[in-house]
Amino acid sequence: MKAFKLDPRLNNDCFIMSESDKFIILLMNNSLVPWFIIVPKTDKSELYELDASMQNSVQAVSNKLSEFIMEEFKPDKLNVAAIGNIVKQMHIHVVGRCKKDVYWPGVVWGAAEKKMYDASEVRNLKSKLDPILEI
Amino acid sequence: MKAFKLDPRLNNDCFIMSESDKFIILLMNNSLVPWFIIVPKTDKSELYELDASMQNSVQAVSNKLSEFIMEEFKPDKLNVAAIGNIVKQMHIHVVGRCKKDVYWPGVVWGAAEKKMYDASEVRNLKSKLDPILEI
Repeated sequence: MKAFKLDPRLNNDCFIMSESDKFIILLMNNSLVPWFIIVPKTDKSELYELDASMQNSVQAVSNKLSEFIMEEFKPDKLNVAAIGNIVKQMHIHVVGRCKKDVYWPGVVWGAAEKKMYDASEVRNLKSKLDPILEI
Repeated sequence: MKAFKLDPRLNNDCFIMSESDKFIILLMNNSLVPWFIIVPKTDKSELYELDASMQNSVQAVSNKLSEFIMEEFKPDKLNVAAIGNIVKQMHIHVVGRCKKDVYWPGVVWGAAEKKMYDASEVRNLKSKLDPILEI
């Protein structure tokens, strides 16, 4: 496969937390909710098009991010979703949701309100994620 | 496990397309988009809490529904999502999205506009799904 290139919109809206041969893991630049994004290095746009091995890998990373979010942020619910209506490059959102967050009980996609991270917050999250995301 | 009971809201909003020992498959009563829902028979509310076997089964059913939607409705995109902010019983949406549908490019969750199915349309869909959903 030719060199994988992250979609410009994802690149613009997110911080890169981790990169491996299979995935790029992003943090959405919105500290109102813990919002991570798994970008499998594929040119397919739908989960069902991935082979079984890659599907399993996506599930494994989603599990790790889910556990991390639960431990770190103690949310009331997780939202795990592959949507891609606007950015077609396959990406899977893993978001921790709290009953007190500004979007609850609505979804986060399409909402206008955002709060950017401080650089130190991003560094802090990355340092916690690094040992988990050995993928 | 005690007898599984479908959440009353899902039961009210959807048609039951199929039931097995592991899943109930629903059709959202909204013909504006092809919108199926997988309800794993579990008392967990998060995907990462399922054991590997059940996660694989969820993925397999999601793949089957995805292929069915692509063949039957030729959508531009699939939206596959476990949200559950309102209905906590685990359920995974598998929705076919078209650039011409009324919600595009927004998500379907929380949108007000709906169009109920005719009984004949539901029967027709069920007859097509039955051979696919031998789960």
